[in-house]
Amino acid sequence: MTADVDYLNRYDASRFPSPLVTVDSVLFTLHQQSLCVLLVERAAPPQQGLWGLPGGFIDMQQDDGTRATALRKLTEKTGIVPSWLEELGTVSGPGRDPRGWSLTVAWFALIAWEDCEPHIATVSDARWVPVEQLGDYALAFDHGDIIQMALSRLRQKTMYSLLPVYALPACFTHGQLQEATEIILGQPIQRKSLIRRFEASGMFEETGESAATGARKARLWRRKPGVDIHLFSRNLLAD
Amino acid sequence: MTADVDYLNRYDASRFPSPLVTVDSVLFTLHQQSLCVLLVERAAPPQQGLWGLPGGFIDMQQDDGTRATALRKLTEKTGIVPSWLEELGTVSGPGRDPRGWSLTVAWFALIAWEDCEPHIATVSDARWVPVEQLGDYALAFDHGDIIQMALSRLRQKTMYSLLPVYALPACFTHGQLQEATEIILGQPIQRKSLIRRFEASGMFEETGESAATGARKARLWRRKPGVDIHLFSRNLLAD
Repeated sequence: MTADVDYLNRYDASRFPSPLVTVDSVLFTLHQQSLCVLLVERAAPPQQGLWGLPGGFIDMQQDDGTRATALRKLTEKTGIVPSWLEELGTVSGPGRDPRGWSLTVAWFALIAWEDCEPHIATVSDARWVPVEQLGDYALAFDHGDIIQMALSRLRQKTMYSLLPVYALPACFTHGQLQEATEIILGQPIQRKSLIRRFEASGMFEETGESAATGARKARLWRRKPGVDIHLFSRNLLAD
Repeated sequence: MTADVDYLNRYDASRFPSPLVTVDSVLFTLHQQSLCVLLVERAAPPQQGLWGLPGGFIDMQQDDGTRATALRKLTEKTGIVPSWLEELGTVSGPGRDPRGWSLTVAWFALIAWEDCEPHIATVSDARWVPVEQLGDYALAFDHGDIIQMALSRLRQKTMYSLLPVYALPACFTHGQLQEATEIILGQPIQRKSLIRRFEASGMFEETGESAATGARKARLWRRKPGVDIHLFSRNLLAD
């Protein structure tokens, strides 16, 4: 280990200075038949007053990784703790932040309205914005691009998984799953394929209750305990 | 913009110092019936002499993003320029590098042996290692974990896409695609499902030639021009 210690002493940070590093989260929910994204009004420069993603700098004293940074910032700025949070990717370069060459690690999640609505009510500068109304907001940095990346990823994953379940209440009907899937994709899907996928996943069980949908009753389903929905995908072994 | 300029002057880097930031690439190929990953012997401390992923620090003067860093380092260290390179994700934390809190942005690719073999021959400290032999190598940092992440992602994507085509020569048979898919997954698949997916993608055309496979002849296929294989996935609209 002597060589490593020597190296630490000789390490010349000025040769390869680090870029600025931030962490940002794109949170989606479904509300009033719309796919919505969470924006926060920037309280400080740069770009004070513009709307951006909840996020901030890594605190190397506190955070054991960028997931911890994302969750800490979400708690501080929105009070929301998503049950599933996935890394979207990074965006980096010399031009995206006036403070210099910067890199942000972006995370994303889809959460049920029931789980975010009570918290957000207490934060005056956070707002759920329907994705089709994003054009009305002056967005900070390249956060508009990051939201579009997250939207693509969410739609792509919705195509081959059962991710929309994250946006549903704990007990839900096939009809609610279809509706959530179609709102996310922005287009109708083949209900038969969706139900086949749902049943083949083996991830859900009937609650024994049913919900009235118009004149008919529909069975209610819930996740089996300990199931990770984002790990399922329709695949070559199951086809 | 005055507020922003003020802010630049007041920006206190010591309050949120940046972590060390590196970029690493996981390159896969198929060779002699094995899925192989590219390792490079570390020429300098820390962890000199151990085997790691080709990568290094961002050069903020040269690189316009971490993809550029990944490609620059691949060229310098291996001579390989993959036609497709996708971000795998980041790994970060206080314990992964003896030099301090660090973050690496990992990229991955699958390339045809024909495209990498001539280059690698000229680099003495780079080696293609079958994934089942990784245990024989002393790996630097957490690069073993990053390789496992990349392997999972590659297998996951193989389940719902036609990614294995990247490992094939320009003209290939259905049998070669099946074989590549099975080597990557490490298990047999349903040929009928694979062929159905291949045909439904609309991404390929017959060359008009055929290849001898044992006593029979098999038709040869190639990608249509301009097709991005990684954008295809079996999905709810196509099912």
